[in-house]
Amino acid sequence: MSVPSTVASLIQANAAALDALDFDGWLAGFTEYAQYHITTAENQRQGLPLGLLHALTKDQLRDRIASISTVNVYEPHRYRHVLSQTWIKGQGLEMQFITPFAVYRITETKPTILFATGEYQDRVEYAHDGVRFMHRTVVLDNDIIDTLLAIPL
Amino acid sequence: MSVPSTVASLIQANAAALDALDFDGWLAGFTEYAQYHITTAENQRQGLPLGLLHALTKDQLRDRIASISTVNVYEPHRYRHVLSQTWIKGQGLEMQFITPFAVYRITETKPTILFATGEYQDRVEYAHDGVRFMHRTVVLDNDIIDTLLAIPL
Amino acid sequence: MSVPSTVASLIQANAAALDALDFDGWLAGFTEYAQYHITTAENQRQGLPLGLLHALTKDQLRDRIASISTVNVYEPHRYRHVLSQTWIKGQGLEMQFITPFAVYRITETKPTILFATGEYQDRVEYAHDGVRFMHRTVVLDNDIIDTLLAIPL
Repeated sequence: MSVPSTVASLIQANAAALDALDFDGWLAGFTEYAQYHITTAENQRQGLPLGLLHALTKDQLRDRIASISTVNVYEPHRYRHVLSQTWIKGQGLEMQFITPFAVYRITETKPTILFATGEYQDRVEYAHDGVRFMHRTVVLDNDIIDTLLAIPL
Repeated sequence: MSVPSTVASLIQANAAALDALDFDGWLAGFTEYAQYHITTAENQRQGLPLGLLHALTKDQLRDRIASISTVNVYEPHRYRHVLSQTWIKGQGLEMQFITPFAVYRITETKPTILFATGEYQDRVEYAHDGVRFMHRTVVLDNDIIDTLLAIPL
Repeated sequence: MSVPSTVASLIQANAAALDALDFDGWLAGFTEYAQYHITTAENQRQGLPLGLLHALTKDQLRDRIASISTVNVYEPHRYRHVLSQTWIKGQGLEMQFITPFAVYRITETKPTILFATGEYQDRVEYAHDGVRFMHRTVVLDNDIIDTLLAIPL
């Protein structure tokens, strides 16, 4: 089975929304009861529940986004996602869309740096008005994250 | 709408031509009256006209290429483009193909470095003998470009 | 001609197998008489036969994999491949699938680094049970490889 173009578009446009700091556009890619997790490969391998960010509904993602604009203090920055080709892992109910990525961190007065590498593990839902994430796990390759993870990945 | 495979091929083959220093192959991807601009995200956000490179016809691109071979003195180098998945932004006449990228700079005696991240914003023209760029804007994420921008991106 | 989705899946899933240290999964992507070479762009340009790794059959790849687990001593690490879009070069018997890449090296206690950039040059074989590599050349952009190349690319 090949990756549907609607799913590929969802994945790329969602990353581009983050890169443009368009958080409403980013949120629009999730269903109301979507789960979103950020964890590390080592945590996932060990089956540890604790990760860097857990949202069990879209409202929790909205709270996270609100806190970026109103509460958190951090150095202004944005990301650039470069996504590898999406591929399909597993079958039936176990099926996931896997998209490896590199994310770069851009600040105004410093050189751009590699921020993180990892992969998206996505399950999606098809509705009459489009396809959305119902379960996204962001698995980071390295346990060392050298700055506050302010913007979701 | 999904990205036509002919457009995806144009975008990737065009980057590969640059990486191979095949400038004729690169030029072949543009229409005769193609516009080609290199600018930064900050410049584009502010609507500033001034960018790093502006070509309003393919002849101006030819001039640029000629100057690389005959006039400019720079340390021999080439690029490696790694392109994210292409996605479609807007509709109708406003439609653009967006392709995020990371470009690495390769020199003979030094480690490869990340040269720039950014995105291509492309409009294309379909002709009987293939598809070509009629308008390409290369938007760099960072204002800091640490070396002479000798080879087009 | 556009890149068949089965070929794109083979290329991405094969890289993902390496990244997950799933060497059996990686080997499964090759035919029994597959050739696999790692070389550099400079070597390839000069037509030099000597490269970093040459396997003329799948058994030689199996030997290489066995030596990773049993003989080699190296710092534990794994890779993250980020693949650019695959494009088609040449026609007929000369046809190759070209996939530029960046590979990052992940170790437990250090920041992730850019390990190599380059491109895959692939020829494939279609069988009733799927598509596999019959000839893969991994062309690295830079002659400087700063660590032991323990895991195939």
